[in-house]
Amino acid sequence: MQLGLIGLGKMGGNMRERIRRAGHTVIGYDRNPEVSDVKSLAELVEKLDAPRHVWVMVPAGTATQTVIDELGDLLEPGDTVIDGGNSRWTDDEKHAAALGIKGIGFVDAGVSGGVWGLENGYALMVGGDKQHVEPLKPIFEALKPEGPYGYVHAGRVGAGHFSKMVHNGIEYAMMQAYAEGWELLEKVHSVENVREVFRSWQEGTVIRSWLLDLAVNALDEDEHLEKLRGYAEDSGEGRWTVEAAIDNAVPLPAITASLFARFASRQDDSPQMKMIAALRNQFGGHAVEKKD
Amino acid sequence: MQLGLIGLGKMGGNMRERIRRAGHTVIGYDRNPEVSDVKSLAELVEKLDAPRHVWVMVPAGTATQTVIDELGDLLEPGDTVIDGGNSRWTDDEKHAAALGIKGIGFVDAGVSGGVWGLENGYALMVGGDKQHVEPLKPIFEALKPEGPYGYVHAGRVGAGHFSKMVHNGIEYAMMQAYAEGWELLEKVHSVENVREVFRSWQEGTVIRSWLLDLAVNALDEDEHLEKLRGYAEDSGEGRWTVEAAIDNAVPLPAITASLFARFASRQDDSPQMKMIAALRNQFGGHAVEKKD
Amino acid sequence: MQLGLIGLGKMGGNMRERIRRAGHTVIGYDRNPEVSDVKSLAELVEKLDAPRHVWVMVPAGTATQTVIDELGDLLEPGDTVIDGGNSRWTDDEKHAAALGIKGIGFVDAGVSGGVWGLENGYALMVGGDKQHVEPLKPIFEALKPEGPYGYVHAGRVGAGHFSKMVHNGIEYAMMQAYAEGWELLEKVHSVENVREVFRSWQEGTVIRSWLLDLAVNALDEDEHLEKLRGYAEDSGEGRWTVEAAIDNAVPLPAITASLFARFASRQDDSPQMKMIAALRNQFGGHAVEKKD
Amino acid sequence: MQLGLIGLGKMGGNMRERIRRAGHTVIGYDRNPEVSDVKSLAELVEKLDAPRHVWVMVPAGTATQTVIDELGDLLEPGDTVIDGGNSRWTDDEKHAAALGIKGIGFVDAGVSGGVWGLENGYALMVGGDKQHVEPLKPIFEALKPEGPYGYVHAGRVGAGHFSKMVHNGIEYAMMQAYAEGWELLEKVHSVENVREVFRSWQEGTVIRSWLLDLAVNALDEDEHLEKLRGYAEDSGEGRWTVEAAIDNAVPLPAITASLFARFASRQDDSPQMKMIAALRNQFGGHAVEKKD
Repeated sequence: MQLGLIGLGKMGGNMRERIRRAGHTVIGYDRNPEVSDVKSLAELVEKLDAPRHVWVMVPAGTATQTVIDELGDLLEPGDTVIDGGNSRWTDDEKHAAALGIKGIGFVDAGVSGGVWGLENGYALMVGGDKQHVEPLKPIFEALKPEGPYGYVHAGRVGAGHFSKMVHNGIEYAMMQAYAEGWELLEKVHSVENVREVFRSWQEGTVIRSWLLDLAVNALDEDEHLEKLRGYAEDSGEGRWTVEAAIDNAVPLPAITASLFARFASRQDDSPQMKMIAALRNQFGGHAVEKKD
Repeated sequence: MQLGLIGLGKMGGNMRERIRRAGHTVIGYDRNPEVSDVKSLAELVEKLDAPRHVWVMVPAGTATQTVIDELGDLLEPGDTVIDGGNSRWTDDEKHAAALGIKGIGFVDAGVSGGVWGLENGYALMVGGDKQHVEPLKPIFEALKPEGPYGYVHAGRVGAGHFSKMVHNGIEYAMMQAYAEGWELLEKVHSVENVREVFRSWQEGTVIRSWLLDLAVNALDEDEHLEKLRGYAEDSGEGRWTVEAAIDNAVPLPAITASLFARFASRQDDSPQMKMIAALRNQFGGHAVEKKD
Repeated sequence: MQLGLIGLGKMGGNMRERIRRAGHTVIGYDRNPEVSDVKSLAELVEKLDAPRHVWVMVPAGTATQTVIDELGDLLEPGDTVIDGGNSRWTDDEKHAAALGIKGIGFVDAGVSGGVWGLENGYALMVGGDKQHVEPLKPIFEALKPEGPYGYVHAGRVGAGHFSKMVHNGIEYAMMQAYAEGWELLEKVHSVENVREVFRSWQEGTVIRSWLLDLAVNALDEDEHLEKLRGYAEDSGEGRWTVEAAIDNAVPLPAITASLFARFASRQDDSPQMKMIAALRNQFGGHAVEKKD
Repeated sequence: MQLGLIGLGKMGGNMRERIRRAGHTVIGYDRNPEVSDVKSLAELVEKLDAPRHVWVMVPAGTATQTVIDELGDLLEPGDTVIDGGNSRWTDDEKHAAALGIKGIGFVDAGVSGGVWGLENGYALMVGGDKQHVEPLKPIFEALKPEGPYGYVHAGRVGAGHFSKMVHNGIEYAMMQAYAEGWELLEKVHSVENVREVFRSWQEGTVIRSWLLDLAVNALDEDEHLEKLRGYAEDSGEGRWTVEAAIDNAVPLPAITASLFARFASRQDDSPQMKMIAALRNQFGGHAVEKKD
């Protein structure tokens, strides 16, 4: 089948390749003319037969909003827009409503797979009405990993991004779990081969996982991670997971602790610990460390 | 080779079977005469050729202490005791010292694999001197999963149990990660197929793992876990992990949160939340819920 | 001076009384005619001399929005609206902008004091432009406790509610601190007089505070809090504090833990701990507790 | 009455002064001859009339153990030792048993008050048998603050130190509460006078406390705490509180978070966050920050 694909960066570019390998026609658009198949969104829309399917794969927020607004003007009733970016699930309903007024369908797709997706396939979590989701099945089949897993129609509009967001929240806490264990093992003297302990865990243990395999890869490149700083960005979905938990009065202590650990990692000096130091000094005369 | 194996319960019984399948001779002892090969520890020791290797697989704490004390009296210089139970790493040095005085070697082995070990093999984390560990290689080979993983000589005496303890600490936080994500997904209305979302994650995602596979198994048996109470025991190793972290001034927020969540799950009513309710009532006249 | 006061519930009613005691004229409006001085907002506005000052003291959210919208229609350029409710700080800018178009000033005031305010005074945290805040000084003086504390012009529009929100976030964690300590003391056998331990802390300790005094009051009424359930509501400001922290990438582990403990206290059974129980059963054959 | 007092440092020296001001006789011993009243423990014991009361005020651990061992040899049946240091509660039973064999009584006293104690009095939490505690009442009266608070006979041997330990655990979380709130206020732009917000809270608010007063003092000295590093030591009692919680399966999320925040504040670079950075790089190609 035909697909329009907007955004041909690290993710979108590989997705175009994987869908084409499955025998489908992809017309890709990117602001970078070197990778783009067409010169404009208008040209992309023109080249597709109706009913059109246009997959948006650009950064969440303003960029996605702008593209969806433009598509709302260019597309026709019966066409469908798929948002495959990392949009906040609360944006999905707004997009579905705005496009719906014009008779254009909307599907949200959470996509996991990172740099490994071209080879292994992309896991897809999809939200939307059945009538909009079903016709896209050949594309989802092309993108997903082989075998019975890696694709789910999770529910209504928003359910795809919500599921992907929770996936990332879980990912935060799993990474934190390995990271905490690694730091503790590196700290004690009796354990002399922490990297080999991690490697041994790859089979037969309760904690074997793909993330553990990646941890071993990282330790093979740099046994004590001496080349790295303990500095971790966060991409938004961990924050949204905690916000969704607050909205729903669900306690998420491990995921939230993982998010906060990243926040703290980016502070050169911790303001709150200055206050702790100041208070200890006030009541107990405890020494404080002065700035140079 | 020959091995004495003390403790033939859920773990020990299956381990005897797996070692025998590999062609070794195992003489097992258990207080339960129905499963025991010999009538006493003395008989077990008598039946083994020197230098003897005796693997202790009984509950951590008093039971392990008692068996090791008895073996200290029965064994001879050049023999080796392996503690494969879930002992606290701090006990290992004591055991090694007490046996060492008598010329008996000591090796600690953390064993992972649970009820799946007979089939898939047991992951082994081993601590001890090379001279005591090396001769046991054929036994470790028999127990471990096939392939390059599942066995490590982690370091000195204590390193095996310490590594296994950290493994369990990581396990706590990974389980908590999936559990938090599952609760949040079950709570929101847009996501209509939480079980299928979990199933889809088994391929192509960052969070695929053996624990995730088990979660899907559990949801296949009881889609919303309605038959279960939200009640979780803890077996000691999570506690020790946090204690080790405190000893070493290592922050473990996610693992500790996971342990505390289990503590709270076992309280019919939370004393600390009574105090919160009482204080809210005191300063704000907020309503409190009375006991019936 | 003259003040219009809308909302004469637990808080507003006492505030009217305290302002009147200071010699000012308060015209109060409430939907409940038994406590109201006038029959409608229109009548309230009519009875005030320009420039008017109208203090809104109704529940945050829809109720506050409705009243402010109505006041926008009734008031005149040069008048000022004060929102003294527990509004989210993000609403303040919207209100200030909507009223500002009409030449009406807006001031946000976080008010603390609860049922003790009539007697002790209300602590006030105020946000807004100096030109709108200054003329209200006599009212703030009347409401605040005697002495040098209890009033601050915290900053721009929104700063009052933001400061009050953070006050409440701190309050959550302080209450949690005492609650955790109390539970631990109640649990150990050597400490036989937990209530008296708390009482003794009221002087000479680092942790003496008004909340501690209230805890002792509560324990005097019910030594082991046996009449209460461990169930705690939350009023929104704790949630907003965590959301503000996430927006600003500030780690708030203690305040967030306090919020999550309240969420958990309201669950009859914990879904996430069902998943933990299910996983433990899957990999280790550990017993689970079934629902009856 | 007469008291022997061992250890005349910051705490002990001021306590000697306060007890003397109340009209009692204190014979003090310190290794530093400039502040000591006698040349040796033996001389101190010799100068006291039987039954003797000897208060030990030296660092917890080895120093306290050594002094108590020596007193066990020097004192006579009927005498009493008071440990006023910050000993772990688990040491108290050992000390009571060792002295008890010799007919010497033992009382444990948790002492709070820091550098302010000489002026304001010391809060005392005492554990031990009534027969040993009662005769010491005049000393406790001299040390404690005036008024009805500041002294409690908390329970059996160990209850004094346990109560003091929990006091310090609560203190950790209260300090963390103010510190988190302060950091958040400093971060947002609308709040222009964070120090004045804190000052205003000193009356009429739910969170007024002595620690808040100290926070204001600290901010008066250095409004944004720019002279300090965000580095906080911990003195042992926070760690023991968490360990006691683990022993008793009591969840202490806020206190533990406060302890972990201090651990993290002392790390130049976080090993666990290196692992997070490494994993993000492995699966997503996310950039990492390299060490220079």
